[in-house]
Amino acid sequence: MNLILLFDDDFIAPARVRLSDRRYAHIRAVQQPEAGQTLKVGLLNGAIGRAQVLRVDDQSIELETCLDQMPPTALPLTLILALPRPKMLKRTLQTIATMGVKKLCLINSYRVDKSYWSSPLLADAAIREQLLLGLEQAGDTQVPDVSLHKRFKPFVEDELPAIATDTRALVAHPYEASECPPAEQTLTTLAIGPEGGFIRYEVEKLQQAGLAPIHVGQRILRVETAVPVLLARLFPPL
Amino acid sequence: MNLILLFDDDFIAPARVRLSDRRYAHIRAVQQPEAGQTLKVGLLNGAIGRAQVLRVDDQSIELETCLDQMPPTALPLTLILALPRPKMLKRTLQTIATMGVKKLCLINSYRVDKSYWSSPLLADAAIREQLLLGLEQAGDTQVPDVSLHKRFKPFVEDELPAIATDTRALVAHPYEASECPPAEQTLTTLAIGPEGGFIRYEVEKLQQAGLAPIHVGQRILRVETAVPVLLARLFPPL
Repeated sequence: MNLILLFDDDFIAPARVRLSDRRYAHIRAVQQPEAGQTLKVGLLNGAIGRAQVLRVDDQSIELETCLDQMPPTALPLTLILALPRPKMLKRTLQTIATMGVKKLCLINSYRVDKSYWSSPLLADAAIREQLLLGLEQAGDTQVPDVSLHKRFKPFVEDELPAIATDTRALVAHPYEASECPPAEQTLTTLAIGPEGGFIRYEVEKLQQAGLAPIHVGQRILRVETAVPVLLARLFPPL
Repeated sequence: MNLILLFDDDFIAPARVRLSDRRYAHIRAVQQPEAGQTLKVGLLNGAIGRAQVLRVDDQSIELETCLDQMPPTALPLTLILALPRPKMLKRTLQTIATMGVKKLCLINSYRVDKSYWSSPLLADAAIREQLLLGLEQAGDTQVPDVSLHKRFKPFVEDELPAIATDTRALVAHPYEASECPPAEQTLTTLAIGPEGGFIRYEVEKLQQAGLAPIHVGQRILRVETAVPVLLARLFPPL
């Protein structure tokens, strides 16, 4: 937790918050705060800044906030990801939030196990929990938008062309692909397949929707490695 | 498993192997092979190629191998990593093997919990198991060399300067650092700290050993994200 995310409900007066939940427990255990100390904070979907510890006891902590900075720059990206298995989904949601992805479409694919779609980790609250952990890690406040698309064909035929239009539209695919283009802070659409990859039919449908196949070298990466590698290659550090 | 790693012991005749262990079970379950089919294989620390299924039954599979290609290019890198917590170590060992790191030094740091050094995951066989999984994922055969350095100061003072000499020597550190240099296939030494980062004293010692601090943007990344991001930024896709 490199930033304490604050919610409107936390405010007991202007610029004054009281925390008594997970965040309080974490601050207490890790940072052992004393009155006068400052902590890094940010308002959910808002500004970031510092907060001074006013009071801390066995129940709660009170902070005086000064939120005067912009959160880190977002990636200008719509990431389309074949739904990973639940354990990997959890980590991937944290990773994409940490790296600054603000739009994630989780889609079906031939090699996505059907059971993944009934995972309790796909509940709104469960997704949000992982995203907030990722934001706290990065020092960001802007919650990514995550949408679920249980049917591949309607998504790719009816929704993807509009998403991809006028963007750098790419699908990560190790075969018959061009080398990954250089890092650029430009509007991008990127599709990443499941373990084992998209099947040929799916790659063809993605190409028809305007996505060009790219690869990042000879090595086959797991999804949880492919995501940070592709984002690092496609966007400059900001 | 995108490549089946073969060992000298597997050969029952020249260019002929019989498998009956984890690899057999995996091939059986995932690839449902039939006689005549070809699979991707590689000899441990040797060449890669294809193997034709000669025979498969309830106990074992026999393959005829043709190992005529070089494994993927390695990263010209010595990676120095503060020992991560055991669960993250497991994944990180797989990731570095997948990405082509061939020299990893796991070191101590102020923020490394002492208990991590007694994890059973640090046994030679346990480390090797994770590395082989990473190689099988990537399609590589060259096992990385992993060394353990339980004392920070002797390693950084006595061993690191020689490792770093005549290489692009860097320490990932988010503060008072230059931007990550561009991707280049050049001899590199890279140190990555623990969760929470190296402390100031450690960064100074690393700088005295010749390492220059670099950052990859404003966001603070977890170690398991920082590793693929830094490797993707520092080396071109090969």
